[in-house]
Amino acid sequence: MTELAAVKAALKTQAVETPSWAYGNSGTRFKVFAQQGVPRDPREKLDDAAKVHEFTGVAPTVALHIPWDTVDDYAALARHAEDRGLRLGTINSNTFQDDDYRLGSVCHPDAAVRRKAVDHLLECVDIMDATGSKALKLWFADGTNYPGQDDVRARQDRLAEALAEVYGRLGADQRMLLEYKLFEPAFYATDVPDWGTAYAHCLKLGPKARVVVDTGHHAPGTNIEFIVATLLREGKLGGFDFNSRFYADDDLMAGAADPFQLFRIMYEVVRGGGFTADVAFMLDQCHNVESKIPAIIRSVMNVQEATAKALLVDRSALADAQRAGDVLGANAVLMDAFDTDVRPLLREVREEMGLDADPMAAYARSGWAEKIVAERVGGEQAGWGA
Amino acid sequence: MTELAAVKAALKTQAVETPSWAYGNSGTRFKVFAQQGVPRDPREKLDDAAKVHEFTGVAPTVALHIPWDTVDDYAALARHAEDRGLRLGTINSNTFQDDDYRLGSVCHPDAAVRRKAVDHLLECVDIMDATGSKALKLWFADGTNYPGQDDVRARQDRLAEALAEVYGRLGADQRMLLEYKLFEPAFYATDVPDWGTAYAHCLKLGPKARVVVDTGHHAPGTNIEFIVATLLREGKLGGFDFNSRFYADDDLMAGAADPFQLFRIMYEVVRGGGFTADVAFMLDQCHNVESKIPAIIRSVMNVQEATAKALLVDRSALADAQRAGDVLGANAVLMDAFDTDVRPLLREVREEMGLDADPMAAYARSGWAEKIVAERVGGEQAGWGA
Amino acid sequence: MTELAAVKAALKTQAVETPSWAYGNSGTRFKVFAQQGVPRDPREKLDDAAKVHEFTGVAPTVALHIPWDTVDDYAALARHAEDRGLRLGTINSNTFQDDDYRLGSVCHPDAAVRRKAVDHLLECVDIMDATGSKALKLWFADGTNYPGQDDVRARQDRLAEALAEVYGRLGADQRMLLEYKLFEPAFYATDVPDWGTAYAHCLKLGPKARVVVDTGHHAPGTNIEFIVATLLREGKLGGFDFNSRFYADDDLMAGAADPFQLFRIMYEVVRGGGFTADVAFMLDQCHNVESKIPAIIRSVMNVQEATAKALLVDRSALADAQRAGDVLGANAVLMDAFDTDVRPLLREVREEMGLDADPMAAYARSGWAEKIVAERVGGEQAGWGA
Amino acid sequence: MTELAAVKAALKTQAVETPSWAYGNSGTRFKVFAQQGVPRDPREKLDDAAKVHEFTGVAPTVALHIPWDTVDDYAALARHAEDRGLRLGTINSNTFQDDDYRLGSVCHPDAAVRRKAVDHLLECVDIMDATGSKALKLWFADGTNYPGQDDVRARQDRLAEALAEVYGRLGADQRMLLEYKLFEPAFYATDVPDWGTAYAHCLKLGPKARVVVDTGHHAPGTNIEFIVATLLREGKLGGFDFNSRFYADDDLMAGAADPFQLFRIMYEVVRGGGFTADVAFMLDQCHNVESKIPAIIRSVMNVQEATAKALLVDRSALADAQRAGDVLGANAVLMDAFDTDVRPLLREVREEMGLDADPMAAYARSGWAEKIVAERVGGEQAGWGA
Repeated sequence: MTELAAVKAALKTQAVETPSWAYGNSGTRFKVFAQQGVPRDPREKLDDAAKVHEFTGVAPTVALHIPWDTVDDYAALARHAEDRGLRLGTINSNTFQDDDYRLGSVCHPDAAVRRKAVDHLLECVDIMDATGSKALKLWFADGTNYPGQDDVRARQDRLAEALAEVYGRLGADQRMLLEYKLFEPAFYATDVPDWGTAYAHCLKLGPKARVVVDTGHHAPGTNIEFIVATLLREGKLGGFDFNSRFYADDDLMAGAADPFQLFRIMYEVVRGGGFTADVAFMLDQCHNVESKIPAIIRSVMNVQEATAKALLVDRSALADAQRAGDVLGANAVLMDAFDTDVRPLLREVREEMGLDADPMAAYARSGWAEKIVAERVGGEQAGWGA
Repeated sequence: MTELAAVKAALKTQAVETPSWAYGNSGTRFKVFAQQGVPRDPREKLDDAAKVHEFTGVAPTVALHIPWDTVDDYAALARHAEDRGLRLGTINSNTFQDDDYRLGSVCHPDAAVRRKAVDHLLECVDIMDATGSKALKLWFADGTNYPGQDDVRARQDRLAEALAEVYGRLGADQRMLLEYKLFEPAFYATDVPDWGTAYAHCLKLGPKARVVVDTGHHAPGTNIEFIVATLLREGKLGGFDFNSRFYADDDLMAGAADPFQLFRIMYEVVRGGGFTADVAFMLDQCHNVESKIPAIIRSVMNVQEATAKALLVDRSALADAQRAGDVLGANAVLMDAFDTDVRPLLREVREEMGLDADPMAAYARSGWAEKIVAERVGGEQAGWGA
Repeated sequence: MTELAAVKAALKTQAVETPSWAYGNSGTRFKVFAQQGVPRDPREKLDDAAKVHEFTGVAPTVALHIPWDTVDDYAALARHAEDRGLRLGTINSNTFQDDDYRLGSVCHPDAAVRRKAVDHLLECVDIMDATGSKALKLWFADGTNYPGQDDVRARQDRLAEALAEVYGRLGADQRMLLEYKLFEPAFYATDVPDWGTAYAHCLKLGPKARVVVDTGHHAPGTNIEFIVATLLREGKLGGFDFNSRFYADDDLMAGAADPFQLFRIMYEVVRGGGFTADVAFMLDQCHNVESKIPAIIRSVMNVQEATAKALLVDRSALADAQRAGDVLGANAVLMDAFDTDVRPLLREVREEMGLDADPMAAYARSGWAEKIVAERVGGEQAGWGA
Repeated sequence: MTELAAVKAALKTQAVETPSWAYGNSGTRFKVFAQQGVPRDPREKLDDAAKVHEFTGVAPTVALHIPWDTVDDYAALARHAEDRGLRLGTINSNTFQDDDYRLGSVCHPDAAVRRKAVDHLLECVDIMDATGSKALKLWFADGTNYPGQDDVRARQDRLAEALAEVYGRLGADQRMLLEYKLFEPAFYATDVPDWGTAYAHCLKLGPKARVVVDTGHHAPGTNIEFIVATLLREGKLGGFDFNSRFYADDDLMAGAADPFQLFRIMYEVVRGGGFTADVAFMLDQCHNVESKIPAIIRSVMNVQEATAKALLVDRSALADAQRAGDVLGANAVLMDAFDTDVRPLLREVREEMGLDADPMAAYARSGWAEKIVAERVGGEQAGWGA
């Protein structure tokens, strides 16, 4: 197989998981701008996700968020997905929207609240059993707003205890993805604020626990690809929540704010052997002002373009320049891949996959946008319920 | 008058404006945790604000937010305030919560939306006429989330045009306070992102337009007291929205995150002659996890403590050390004031004002918290309506 | 002229000024790594700069730094430049390396130090007269390291006074470019920390005073292209000091850290009518670990590529999408230009200019690097003298 | 023993290590301002350090930096220290100032350079044997300036190998302190950029390896006290390099930029049982514009004041409020300690230790400053040699 053929083959196997909640309404604390045609239940979210997969060919799974996607019959929901060419993906827990969680969930000073939170996490594993999902993604909003509000260290003990119980409940082929986030909604100390904390917990839990990197969850100036390389080296990278940001956790479309950064991240993934099913490529975004389905298609395409560029890096030439200490030469090898316009290549890949070369245009022509606006009238639109 | 007597006298005249919305529910995009006893209308907010003034003695005015505090009869609302020893303060406009404002208000590409936004601002001046408020505070959420989304420069032209129309409507003793904010809810480019932009607009508008500094609206590492000193030197400091932050616009209690910074800000205010009615000391905070009225009392006290320390700086010794190039000596003079425990002094000030020396304890003993929980049952609690 | 022809024509007229000091040794406070072949005097720096212009065709002027480039006969130095196809460009002052400047220069508490600093600035204008340079670039390291160290506001008064005197000395066709910088070497308060401060001073000085934007001098998260658009709208953008940064004022090669940002900046330049001789495109970089001449060639090429992409934006389609409120469509128009591989276009441009299509390869083949290593033996290499 | 007596007793046993290099000249890449009277050799540095200990009573050890403090006879140097009431402390390695280290030291792509670096580290352990120092502090400037410059992951392998060899050489009672730093002098990727990386390496090395926290080495917004609490919980906190910063690694006097942060850090130390000889309290500062010895005395005092406040926290009341979920109450307990003026307490402590109550004044009166200016004439002043 030629090198280019190998790149194409890799791109055809890539899978980007889209999040059910990105199809619903979202916003900031100032305002949620509702959009017409937004899904009103998990099935309609899957219907939209199916369109993303139909036109991109690389978005075969959908992450669920419990309780936003709670249904009575998960097996039926899984069949609804399968009927549309999709599978249900990662189960995302929610321990931040019940009034009981004002001061935290698994780190709360009150054991009863912790119990409730852990029970919810265990229920999420039950749902995994029902849906066939292989991964439980844990993001904890836990933290404190004021110095002294709670005992920062004791909260770590409580966190460890909760994680251990949930870890023990995982099936043989299930795993736990632990997410970290610098701040928001906690404004003084977040209980899992950085990759080091998530890593330390995962290390103690065991091989089924891995760290997930949300690209919007870091302090300014953090070199995210370094973290990716390090976690891969440690065998502890579970996956990504892709999105982009200029300031905080802006949750913009992946690749929109700093496409060069996304490329560097994907390069470390490729270099570190992470371009396998073992590392999950997920989106976690909010389309507050732009149309949701096209925004998700565009995001998937942005991830593909970054991946294509990363795969095109001439690693042999790069290694030579690096070994020789040729700073400019090595940098030039990397930039050469980044500066390449990979859109023609991706159009070819899509055509070889039997897809339209231009997913955005194909979606626009499909009439789906008009159809959902016309048909999804009445009922309550899906959202975060914040 | 001795120096200490002068400090006490100054502290007795200080006025900190509290915001009506801080008495209502607030939260993050993830969750608004409702609290018991929260006001259900503007009158109840004033009732709570009256308690803050009753126990601190230095919070005589309350900022209103339109439309959150819209009433049929503003004169009656003003009387409600007066009956409780309060006055209505700054009128805050809202051009970010109507569906029309998804892509901006006064900077929106559509002239019809801009017209609607300007009409709202003009209506706010009408309300000022009715309430006797002297200041219109303008914060624009306007901005864009994606590069290219709109023409950044054209938006400035639209902004200038809108501001000019509103400025022209101001009465002789009314003024316009223009607020800037780095980001949120806009995530790529905010239309008034920094003091320089606000200053440039105010300069063109004229003497009634001034810049307001929200202490949570800056990029990391920004020296806020430098901005305060500069705006005072330019005669363009309109006032403050005090709150504190560790990360972004966290809206925590003033003085909670970095009391030394608040002291340095107050020192530049004192040094620059800004400790007069001309510069408005306002709070703009969100008490998401803590009890609201005590949090506001505490914030007012924190502002007082920072002010007391700033007033205690031995400016003559400081000037001597500065002139001599004595870096450590000059720093020590400033730190000496900061390191002083001013709580005893403030207890004295309060007692001389006929107040309880300990506002937090006095409020706790007053039974107000229990009373509002018991009485404010039913109805819809006030909040941001996001 | 077709659109592409117009783009090419614009690219051929672009002029990027390279800084004499970038050809000399530089480093961090931890270490200056000397490189072989580095110039030992201003003439040798010009010899190297001539190579950059020879191979890129768009680097016809060289900025001087006084006293690093002090010579007895500036007319002779100008002839040396002309003989190599160059002109002497901006004169950069230095008020930070004399022991007297420990506590500042034009803002120093001691009037004698201020006098010395102003005299140096006036001498720089004398040098401009001698060299024919049209612009005086002022960067002040002035600031304080500790709160209280000096009177922040009084320092502004001193600054204003110094600037006014120097402004008064400018000839009819000379101008003053005032640079701002967040921090370093001052660590508490810098006297010209942001564009607002520089703008306020320039406004008072008059039309010959303009703000210069160093792309590495901002707080994290600052939207630089917004500042560019705003200064252009105000008629106060003097030019750029290009370089790139991941953290602070890293002074890496332009376009190396965030090529998308450089493109966005150049787009606002193009959109705002700043792509004229009126706005100076300068580099200000430190090549601490990489070879200097190739690094400068590469930087010039990076600026060209960003410019080419900016010129390729379909502004009519963009305006249509913006007017329509089509967030994704407008963003896509911008991204379409950024995603384009403009290297083939630039190769054509160079060939049409009679240059080698690949400046890096042509320089490598030229033997200049080997020649200067062999010939520049003995003497003292140029550097910052810190 | 009463509670206050216990606090005093603890304060009397505190030991703050001062760094030999802080007594010498330092600066930024722009300028090193030499000061009169600065030491010219390690013995004179110890002479100055002895004054700091003489007047504060809590600075009994001095950190050495190799090769800045290289001497022929370390036993003699140790005796020189002992004669002045001091002991030699941590040995700090230097793998960043040799020309060979342009592209790194222990992470360099060239095995010969790595060998040289490791040999230097092993030599440092030899020096520890000679001086009786118990800790080797490793800070690596290693990193890259440009994406692609070197293989980020391979550099981790090289780092691990180097650390393992040095670890193996440590004596039974010696330990290794691994420091992390976000950036500078590397500007793209630093090889030990954060606590997570340092922790992961220390974990693999074994119990003698611990992480050292330099308070100036973090991204903006990082909650340092969280890291302190976490490392203590993991048994991996080796100690501190105290200093303060507004922007980057400013290396200002400890406690000068954010005294509240220093207090919060010290509170987590106290709470986590780290207030023992096991956790080293070291200074790592640069006194670029202020007098060095008084700056160090002041820094030691600032650490003492933060410690005193941390010890005064009413932990029982704090725990009660935390358990009750009383956000404001818990915060108030912490703030109550911070707001306390502990200077009178520390004056008492000093008098009980037989010291002058005011170290700054006592040093000023001692005549030492005048003496060293008069006597230390000729020779080369100590500095970083950058």
